[in-house]
Amino acid sequence: MKTGNIGEFGLIDRLAGTLGAAGDRVLRGIGDDAAVLEGRADRLLLATCDIQIQGVHFVSGAIEPVQIGSRVAAVNLSDIAAMGGSPLWALVSLTVPPSTEVEYLEEIYRGMAGELSRSGARIVGGNTSSTSGPLTIDMTLVGEVERENLLTRDGARVGDALCVTGDLGSSAAGLFLNQNKSAACDAAVRESLVHRHLIPSPRIEQGRMLGATGAVTACIDLSDGLFQDAGHIAQRSGVGVCIHAEEIPVSADVRTVATSLRMDWMDLALGGGEDYELLFTADPVECDGILARLKEETGISARKIGEIVDGAPEVIVIRDGKRIDPAVAGFDHFESGGSGC
Amino acid sequence: MKTGNIGEFGLIDRLAGTLGAAGDRVLRGIGDDAAVLEGRADRLLLATCDIQIQGVHFVSGAIEPVQIGSRVAAVNLSDIAAMGGSPLWALVSLTVPPSTEVEYLEEIYRGMAGELSRSGARIVGGNTSSTSGPLTIDMTLVGEVERENLLTRDGARVGDALCVTGDLGSSAAGLFLNQNKSAACDAAVRESLVHRHLIPSPRIEQGRMLGATGAVTACIDLSDGLFQDAGHIAQRSGVGVCIHAEEIPVSADVRTVATSLRMDWMDLALGGGEDYELLFTADPVECDGILARLKEETGISARKIGEIVDGAPEVIVIRDGKRIDPAVAGFDHFESGGSGC
Repeated sequence: MKTGNIGEFGLIDRLAGTLGAAGDRVLRGIGDDAAVLEGRADRLLLATCDIQIQGVHFVSGAIEPVQIGSRVAAVNLSDIAAMGGSPLWALVSLTVPPSTEVEYLEEIYRGMAGELSRSGARIVGGNTSSTSGPLTIDMTLVGEVERENLLTRDGARVGDALCVTGDLGSSAAGLFLNQNKSAACDAAVRESLVHRHLIPSPRIEQGRMLGATGAVTACIDLSDGLFQDAGHIAQRSGVGVCIHAEEIPVSADVRTVATSLRMDWMDLALGGGEDYELLFTADPVECDGILARLKEETGISARKIGEIVDGAPEVIVIRDGKRIDPAVAGFDHFESGGSGC
Repeated sequence: MKTGNIGEFGLIDRLAGTLGAAGDRVLRGIGDDAAVLEGRADRLLLATCDIQIQGVHFVSGAIEPVQIGSRVAAVNLSDIAAMGGSPLWALVSLTVPPSTEVEYLEEIYRGMAGELSRSGARIVGGNTSSTSGPLTIDMTLVGEVERENLLTRDGARVGDALCVTGDLGSSAAGLFLNQNKSAACDAAVRESLVHRHLIPSPRIEQGRMLGATGAVTACIDLSDGLFQDAGHIAQRSGVGVCIHAEEIPVSADVRTVATSLRMDWMDLALGGGEDYELLFTADPVECDGILARLKEETGISARKIGEIVDGAPEVIVIRDGKRIDPAVAGFDHFESGGSGC
């Protein structure tokens, strides 16, 4: 079996299958947004890694090097956010074609360091290596979380509310516009959506707040798309996840772009990945209070888009009162070349 | 300036220069074998990363996949050993051409997990991504060390003894033999030396013992070659390092191979990298006792090969009573495509 035919999650399952049971000080190994490890008495350590490859995750001419750096930091920060944690230390492995300008790499470093520092984290080590392949930036990020504030994918309970921060589909719309320069679109809208795609905003503050409520039962960051990531909560928690399509927050810009491009906004919101918002489940009684606090304390809105239901561990999408079969079910990062931790 | 023209250490200096001062909980960032971070009250965390790239660090036909896995684990374990630490958790980033067989990657994973488990460590996370470039395995390894047992590169003092574990030059001889199948060599010797090159033995137990003595003042693992790595101790400690060439432990096999290939054994021992032995400095009064304990408690011999001297932070090599200028001064990993943390 070739890796190109097995898909990212199939490959991860096969590789994880070669490992034994988790060790004494490993609370969670492969299978969540980050590994959870025993740290100091009252804290757990979190560790994640994610990569950006030239020609796969970014195209040199379409993104500034400082933005490449911000992006690799942001996707890693997002994994720590999804666990309710605070990022601390990053290690960076650079694999570089010899013809790369040193100044270009310095700019990437400045982007990484800048994005990390906004969340209180910093680069503490790494390595460099030359390659015949494309420029590759691999970051490992270590964070920590108070033991009682840890958020995972597997705690959703029947009856919980399903909520999401921010709005969805902007990254997918921005990616499409960035790849199709001739597509008709208002210049300001194009710039805004492309920026949303290029530099995600990791929801560190929001993740920490959600973890501290004690009423959030599961959480994941949206890297693979709402439909696919909701499926991870369903599978890991052993519950059904019901999404009401009309409740998904989608900006007017994304709706306008979708209409003018004859796309369905729902495909962008459900199947488009890399929004890096947080999808979480919460006690239904506490939900409204949590959403109000999130807006008040962090300035970011979140919205209830569904609920956890009894039944098979799958995602049910309801639109116009009927269950639909989403045409786009997230994209598999491995087939498209991406990554996931 | 192209990265291909600046060298690995020049590039690392430039990139490190983009970062600010170390943070509150960062005892050491870039510049030692591993970053040193505040862990639990009585422990420090160590973090390092190192990479193996197909066609650069290994050639598929010349090494079994399980050996590739062992190798990437061993080079990372060696960095933790050099700090006196115990390895705990590894994250693995696999960048894979889509045509790679899943079974091949499973074997690499088994090799990594097996080598890690011998030292009490395990894989806890990672990611996978497809690439148009070569197969790349990037491992980040986190370990810990008792606060008082930490070994670093910068504590060598004038008068200290300079010692090295095991024997040197075997990896370089094995690499040469592996790349030159027609070179005349006894089959058993060839097999032994090639194995030494392919799968280093990380000196975890020895590093821990050295850290616990309280009399070892500096330590580094030999990845770039004795001359170059001794130079790191000289520069970081601000002292001169004097090496007596005749005292360098070199096996009869390496001497025989060097003679038959019309090479100087000293070039292999001083300039050949990837022996992954530990080079350390120790209180001269305690030195003999430390060497005896190392042999007795861990089964590995170590030998005094020089001393720390006053003067410029450089490496002085004495052979036959005269200072010599080593013809081979280690290879720069960046130029040759390698890596270093």
